[in-house]
Amino acid sequence: MAIHKRGRQSFVLPQLPVIRNWASVAGKKESEGPLAHTFDITSQDTYFGEKTWEQAEKKMQQMALHKLAEKAGMKKGEFELVLSGDLLNQCIGSSFSLRNTGIPHLGLYGACSTMTESLLLASVMVGGGFADKVVAQTSSHFASSERQYRFPLGYGGQRTPTSQWTVTGSGAALICSSGTGPRIECCTLGTVTDLGIKDANNMGAAMAPAAFETIRAHMQDLNRTPEDFDLIVTGDLGQLGKELLLELGRRNHLPLGGKLADCGTLVFDNTTQDVHAGGSGCGCSAITLCGYLLNQLNEGKLRRILFCGTGALLSPTSTQQGLPIPGVCHAVSIITGRD
Amino acid sequence: MAIHKRGRQSFVLPQLPVIRNWASVAGKKESEGPLAHTFDITSQDTYFGEKTWEQAEKKMQQMALHKLAEKAGMKKGEFELVLSGDLLNQCIGSSFSLRNTGIPHLGLYGACSTMTESLLLASVMVGGGFADKVVAQTSSHFASSERQYRFPLGYGGQRTPTSQWTVTGSGAALICSSGTGPRIECCTLGTVTDLGIKDANNMGAAMAPAAFETIRAHMQDLNRTPEDFDLIVTGDLGQLGKELLLELGRRNHLPLGGKLADCGTLVFDNTTQDVHAGGSGCGCSAITLCGYLLNQLNEGKLRRILFCGTGALLSPTSTQQGLPIPGVCHAVSIITGRD
Repeated sequence: MAIHKRGRQSFVLPQLPVIRNWASVAGKKESEGPLAHTFDITSQDTYFGEKTWEQAEKKMQQMALHKLAEKAGMKKGEFELVLSGDLLNQCIGSSFSLRNTGIPHLGLYGACSTMTESLLLASVMVGGGFADKVVAQTSSHFASSERQYRFPLGYGGQRTPTSQWTVTGSGAALICSSGTGPRIECCTLGTVTDLGIKDANNMGAAMAPAAFETIRAHMQDLNRTPEDFDLIVTGDLGQLGKELLLELGRRNHLPLGGKLADCGTLVFDNTTQDVHAGGSGCGCSAITLCGYLLNQLNEGKLRRILFCGTGALLSPTSTQQGLPIPGVCHAVSIITGRD
Repeated sequence: MAIHKRGRQSFVLPQLPVIRNWASVAGKKESEGPLAHTFDITSQDTYFGEKTWEQAEKKMQQMALHKLAEKAGMKKGEFELVLSGDLLNQCIGSSFSLRNTGIPHLGLYGACSTMTESLLLASVMVGGGFADKVVAQTSSHFASSERQYRFPLGYGGQRTPTSQWTVTGSGAALICSSGTGPRIECCTLGTVTDLGIKDANNMGAAMAPAAFETIRAHMQDLNRTPEDFDLIVTGDLGQLGKELLLELGRRNHLPLGGKLADCGTLVFDNTTQDVHAGGSGCGCSAITLCGYLLNQLNEGKLRRILFCGTGALLSPTSTQQGLPIPGVCHAVSIITGRD
């Protein structure tokens, strides 16, 4: 049997799976941000026509999947597997979205790293010949997250300067064994890293060490340097977490300056949109990837990126019990299809 | 590239991954049941030495992983990946268990189907050459589930006759590309199936249609019949769900009688242990597999089983919002290592 594993945490894909199509759905605030023109669908209604925010999240996933099928010129029933998850308790955004569609589904929980986790596993399913036409998808919603993780919105709680704004949106990508589009070369699995941060309003600080560990593992396992990439893009460290990651890089002889971008700082304009430290949530990296980043890769404006989804693996219960916030980060290396 | 997909939802594994070792940890009530002698570790302390039930669940996962390493004659650091999830909000049992261990982790959410989902993805990672020495693991805890999904235990609520008893336990299995032990032949991915059951105290009824759909897909995709198996084992349908599945089989010309067993009815003695319709929870199928079933397969007393984890994809929020309970079921075909 051919062994595709490299180093401690990484593997290569013998025949590069192709990201053939992608689609994104975003909310009102996202539609006022710098990436507005890259979303397929935006809505001014935070309920997306549903009765509750949780159902709105389900609806966004359904809309993104529908749009993806349309862009791919396929029927949804032709998708062979959807790998998806979200932040809601028991991931009901994902499971209710796929109810009675007949599409096979594997549910994931990687907090805000889920877009990368789903891409990574989709690559394995397609690259290994176990399935084709596999969808990687996730979502988050500002209002459903706020009331689940923090306070009811009507309470009007003050947000701390380190807090981030959960993106309302869903992104979906179609991974195939053939066709044209950006391609996935190799992936690095993340470990659960915790340096003891306990402030649930400072996710960036909790996730930065995990991001650093995974980026370092990727470089070591595959004998690469940051210079091999046009961009190293983390999921939702926000302004503060991004600075901490740069500092970790400097201290550990892995300078990331000039290469590092973060979806949490790309998706909103931090100076005018009052989002404090930036965007967050599964949807943050999902809509940034399934729009801006994949468009740039497709057009050859970016030639290789390391897409590093970052997740804070806390729950309100773990926080109430005084526990710290473990972070995780998985990485997927994507190259342009223009070669 | 070799294509391993078969039919609509299934795939075969070209070189059969081996389940080389397995370990289980169980609670007090489980240690009084018919499978008591098959568990590696049992505890009379529902807290497993921790301060909270959520932390007890984390501890059970740590104990099962430790025991697995011991039985495998390996250091935990040699595990290349742990695929795991649980029922706690944001799966904190799994993520806190692996905190700062340095072991790569992918988090899953399949409700009580998680043991099968993790086995399935472990088979893909190992069978495709993307990783080796991969652990599939999950857990559940009666007390943490009751308070999260239903009522505080101290409230002393009456349980309905259709309700099931969440198993306190964790099971872990080590999947390798070589070695001896039961082997995984092929897998079937489940779809999210919902016939409109809304009673959150009747999970068996909600999950039975998903189990039927997946078992039917497995037989069709791989041209098999129930006669090809010694046992078809569902995860946690309980007594009622098992009867409904048998009825679905009869009505759809796929008779399962004589072949069907359910971990929820194996793990407790329903006549003496006051568990109403039987056991449930991720841990239910996990400790039944990582003990009784794998022992029987290893000894050649069972030669081929279809292990069908069943999950009810509800959350307290979806139930409060009046939504039905979607079910999912994945299936993994396991054969004896004695050939």
